[in-house]
Amino acid sequence: MKILVINTGSSSVKYKLYDLRKKEVLSKGLLEKIYEPGTRLTHEKLPEHPDRKVKTENSISLTHKSGLERIAGLLSDNEYGVISNNDEISAVGHRVVHGGETFKTPAVIDEKVISAIKENIPLAPLHNPSNLTGIEIVGNLFPKAIQVAVFDTTFHQTMPPEAFIYALPYELYEKHRVRKYGFHGTSHAYVSRKAAGFLERPLDELNMITIHLGNGGSMCAIQNGSCIETSMGMTPLGGLVMGTRCGDLDPSIPFFLSDHLNMSLKEIDSLLNKSSGLKGICGVNDMREVIKRKNQGDIRAELALKKYIRRIRKYIGAYFAILEKLDCLIFTGGIGENAMEIREGCCSGLNRLGIEIDRERNQITKNKIREINKPMSQLKILVVPTDEELMIALETQEVLSYL
Amino acid sequence: MKILVINTGSSSVKYKLYDLRKKEVLSKGLLEKIYEPGTRLTHEKLPEHPDRKVKTENSISLTHKSGLERIAGLLSDNEYGVISNNDEISAVGHRVVHGGETFKTPAVIDEKVISAIKENIPLAPLHNPSNLTGIEIVGNLFPKAIQVAVFDTTFHQTMPPEAFIYALPYELYEKHRVRKYGFHGTSHAYVSRKAAGFLERPLDELNMITIHLGNGGSMCAIQNGSCIETSMGMTPLGGLVMGTRCGDLDPSIPFFLSDHLNMSLKEIDSLLNKSSGLKGICGVNDMREVIKRKNQGDIRAELALKKYIRRIRKYIGAYFAILEKLDCLIFTGGIGENAMEIREGCCSGLNRLGIEIDRERNQITKNKIREINKPMSQLKILVVPTDEELMIALETQEVLSYL
Repeated sequence: MKILVINTGSSSVKYKLYDLRKKEVLSKGLLEKIYEPGTRLTHEKLPEHPDRKVKTENSISLTHKSGLERIAGLLSDNEYGVISNNDEISAVGHRVVHGGETFKTPAVIDEKVISAIKENIPLAPLHNPSNLTGIEIVGNLFPKAIQVAVFDTTFHQTMPPEAFIYALPYELYEKHRVRKYGFHGTSHAYVSRKAAGFLERPLDELNMITIHLGNGGSMCAIQNGSCIETSMGMTPLGGLVMGTRCGDLDPSIPFFLSDHLNMSLKEIDSLLNKSSGLKGICGVNDMREVIKRKNQGDIRAELALKKYIRRIRKYIGAYFAILEKLDCLIFTGGIGENAMEIREGCCSGLNRLGIEIDRERNQITKNKIREINKPMSQLKILVVPTDEELMIALETQEVLSYL
Repeated sequence: MKILVINTGSSSVKYKLYDLRKKEVLSKGLLEKIYEPGTRLTHEKLPEHPDRKVKTENSISLTHKSGLERIAGLLSDNEYGVISNNDEISAVGHRVVHGGETFKTPAVIDEKVISAIKENIPLAPLHNPSNLTGIEIVGNLFPKAIQVAVFDTTFHQTMPPEAFIYALPYELYEKHRVRKYGFHGTSHAYVSRKAAGFLERPLDELNMITIHLGNGGSMCAIQNGSCIETSMGMTPLGGLVMGTRCGDLDPSIPFFLSDHLNMSLKEIDSLLNKSSGLKGICGVNDMREVIKRKNQGDIRAELALKKYIRRIRKYIGAYFAILEKLDCLIFTGGIGENAMEIREGCCSGLNRLGIEIDRERNQITKNKIREINKPMSQLKILVVPTDEELMIALETQEVLSYL
């Protein structure tokens, strides 16, 4: 069964075509700078051996529609293609950012689902509209394929009310759906499943803390396989220190910036989302560069790292307190998988919580699930490479199996 | 030595006169509704036995100046007074809300100190101006007394940079002093000292988590007697769920309220400060009423309590993770001292952290420092009645001893 996974953003499209029966990625690609002069499409025919082929095209300016048409064309291209015609694709799994409270699971896309995604636009004004554009165009290009929406938010829909409600007037929740939703759900779900498989234990008996650290970052407390807390909020701005986002903040600060610096709300929004986080403290948001500068003696880079780590440690403690027991701590995402300094910083000195990192095992770098706790430790610390596209493909397949 | 403690707010003045040598409160009182029709002054001559006398005066409208003059008059009044003339008062301790980064300790008030308090007005626009008004008027009324400023913020000045810096552009800290300050410092300092005395251990060897729960609420992580983290931020809005304040919040939510509900920043500020917290979730902010309603089956009151407790539990876990060891957990403030349900909710199920509450001891109500952990527990859980006025008097006395 061939499943195409599509992530349609406002100015980019990422795609991956899976043959899940053979457990293979057949093709993948990235369309960038849509609507800009110099739209760029990189398409790869896989598997790597023996006949991997890469094609890069630069166009004057593509739209979502013309760009997705090019992608469809390349997928069935004589030289670069991997299918003979579009009908070979059984299903398309679309990443959709915000499912609000409507979607507790992935959904086969029909008119009702499209309406519901539209209704959630106020909650994700930058993302849901592009996701809908992708759904519409791809639906026309692959009319025989079943379209499935997989949401960033559904994994967190198991949170209890005392976790997702804010201490705000209750009518803001009832009438305007102001509550904590959480994001990166596909990643948290994927790594928690992988961990259960690796540990050879049933997912629904495991309590875990998952730590997804990329340019964005979030954490989950998982009880018996289900999310009961997450660090991101109604939007992806809250929680951890991120590359350019501030995470948790005294909610009065926007008022101070408006009163004393005469900043507009739009400027403050941009400041908190794009100029804060690691970049705000030390000037750069790439973790490799932050670590490099810190090792060269840059005091601000050191402060940024200390802050980044302290926030994560506080969340580990907080989630430890609300979970009845803790079986497993998981690092994932670009930083979680690769930055051994960060993992050590987050775990060291937490033996009282049963968290015992093994310094040598932590220093091994490989792109594979692995254990980095001390050999005799009851509580497992795992590094789990995330794969959100694969998870979307698997969830799409799962939805199809219910049809 | 007689020390007068004064807390001058925008529409009220609280005062207490101590004889610290005799460890007695000689007199106390409250002036309310300044500048309103019907200013009310309640003045008490103490000790209670044998000659406690209470006088209540209603005036058409008093100002800070005329109100403080009345208070000074009553303190040396023939019938209701406790001193024969104003010069008997050696010192006045003023509560000042915001000392910014300028004040690491209480300070004898002179022109430089007044300028520095003025410079901190942007950080506490509602409080510091009234505090300054009180300092000026009282200085003229008691010209022989040494005036001392005791700040809500100084106790937290020992936090390391990674605790007090926000993940915002660093220049906001350098140029505009945007950082975490913390409040309720006088209370956290007082109860931590009292706890050390009660446990007969040196303060500077003790690690503690202090939980101050009143209509406002905040927590501190205290390492070797010094504050290393606190839940309130640049302003008293952040952190715990409070009576009417939201505490921690996704910092995007003000933007959502502005965009989708067309609320002004002033309205949003008021909503977060005055209509949120317990009141926002269940309609009332008095904890006794919330508990009563919950016991009558009110679902929203139950949710408000669960949220309130969950937030505290998360902070306990977070502070446990950043403290190297934990010796003592302290409840204080009106709710912390009196609401056994809240204390039990915060502590139950945290045995893995060494927190073992004794249900029977927890139910004893008395206005005295007491232990509520299980008898054999290493980690002590204490209820410590706070006394911010006494702490201000003691700090004032301490400052005098250095002169």
